[in-house]
Parts: sequence; C-alpha cells; structure tokens
Amino acid sequence: MDTVTSAQVINKDALLRHWLGHRNLTRRVIEAFPEKELFGFSIGGMRPFSQLAIELLSIGGPAMESIVKDEPLPYNEEALRLITKEQILAKWDEQTDVITRYFNQLPLERFSETFNLFGQYEFPIIDNIFYFIDNEIHHRGQGYVYLRALGIEPPMFWERD
Amino acid sequence: MDTVTSAQVINKDALLRHWLGHRNLTRRVIEAFPEKELFGFSIGGMRPFSQLAIELLSIGGPAMESIVKDEPLPYNEEALRLITKEQILAKWDEQTDVITRYFNQLPLERFSETFNLFGQYEFPIIDNIFYFIDNEIHHRGQGYVYLRALGIEPPMFWERD
Repeated sequence: MDTVTSAQVINKDALLRHWLGHRNLTRRVIEAFPEKELFGFSIGGMRPFSQLAIELLSIGGPAMESIVKDEPLPYNEEALRLITKEQILAKWDEQTDVITRYFNQLPLERFSETFNLFGQYEFPIIDNIFYFIDNEIHHRGQGYVYLRALGIEPPMFWERD
Repeated sequence: MDTVTSAQVINKDALLRHWLGHRNLTRRVIEAFPEKELFGFSIGGMRPFSQLAIELLSIGGPAMESIVKDEPLPYNEEALRLITKEQILAKWDEQTDVITRYFNQLPLERFSETFNLFGQYEFPIIDNIFYFIDNEIHHRGQGYVYLRALGIEPPMFWERD
C-alpha cells in the first residue's frame, strides 16, 4: 500500500490506547472518593458512583469478550457483588486486562460488522466500542460533580497515563 | 484496494456522524434547562451549564476551522457574549454547520498529523478531535446531574438523532 491508500482516521492500537487512557482517569476518580461516599453519596436521586462503576465493569470487558467470541451474552450487572473500594479497583484492573486481551484479538475487518450486543443492541462493533467509551466519560463526568459537591478536587480531565 | 487492506476502525463520515449525534444530544440538554437555571444553577462551585456550553462552542467549530486552515489561533471564550438560551441554541446550530463544513474539508491524510491546537496543544489531529467529543460528553454528563438536581428528567443518553 502507498501512503495515501493506507491513511485512516485512527488505527486500532491508537483507539485501544485512547480507551485505556480513559480507564486510567476513571480509576483515579474511583480512588478519589472516600469509601463511604463512593457507596452512599448521590445527587438528585441518581446512583452512587460505586454503582456507576459497577455498570461500567459490567459492560467493557464482558462486551469485548462476547464480541470476540461472537456469543451475544445478556447484560448482567447483578453478577458483580463489590462492596468495598478495594474490590472495585481490583476488578477495574482485572477488566482492563480483559479489555486489552480481547480488543487485540478483534480483527480489523470486524469493526464495521454488526453485532447484537447483550442480545439487545444490534449495531456495528465500532459503534458499540464508542458507546462503551462514551458511556464511561458520561458517568465519570457525573462523578466529577459528586466529588465537587463533596469538596474534593477531581483529577485533571486530560490525565490519562 | 482489496477488502482486507481497506478495512479500518472507523471511516471519516462515520466519525462525523458520531460527533454530530453527540451535538444533537447536547443541544437537547441545553434546551432542557429553564432559562434562569441554565445561567444561574450549579453544584459545588462549578460553572453553570451555559458557561460549559460556551466552552464547547469555543472549541469545536473554531478548532476545526483552525486545523483545516492550518492556522493555530488562540482559544478565545471571551469572544462569545451569549446571554439567552435562544442565543446559545442559535450559536450551537451555526457551529454545527461550521464543524460539518471544515470536518469534510480535512483530508484523511491529516488525521495522524500533529497540530498545535490553540497554539498550546501539540497532538495528532485525531487526538484533538477525540478531545472535542470527549470534553463535550464530559460536560454534558455534568449537565445531567444539574438537571436531576433540579428535578428535570434529562434526555436519554442514546438519543442522537
């Protein structure tokens, strides 16, 4: 291939780095919460940040495994019984490895193929992956407000290492 | 090109559609705020949602124009004097057109090139574009908490039309 035909919007490795950078930042936000407020604090009837983190843990890794194995498994947040910050952070690190492993196994040709995620969301795989990342950014942004309301300075948005 | 070498993570048109979908949702969030609270309500010393929207308006369109023209202009939020919801929404629609026009003019080959955005952030153009989108999702997520705290149901996260 010459330079022109191989040009692309983003390559696969860069998208994974982008996602993992977001995961690093979200991990910092989980860490920034005091134990009690992580599980008990919320605003306007929303879920506490622990529950938002558990949602994220129920999506990224399980979804990537499901996509790569081509097995549409149901969404199952109930399976995760995490009751301490330490448990959530340990699961976060475990799932980062799961995401990395399966993302790397996904052939480039499959990103544009549709997949029936959780047996419910039939979209191109790239749209599903953007959804995982965007949903994490969305809920983490909510976590920033919780932290501010608690008088805690959140990590810088551009810290991704 | 055969099918294998032309496979890519995401194509240019799909990335623009993705961004514009997010802009549609953010527009709905601006609309959901009552006039007074859009400019006056906040939590934990943060900025009201009008100011977050003005930040977003100072980034997306101006940045895409700057990138396409290859002129690193400084960031200038002060230039936008928007004092009603109607003015913000009108500017939002105007900037959606600006983003669309310049995004379409950006050659595929340039996405991996670095650009010194606002004369300050020297990164590959694709990283800058992801930053624009991610920063919008981040602040909009904060807007969701403001709305919930005000007892207002925010739009569904997956509504992008």
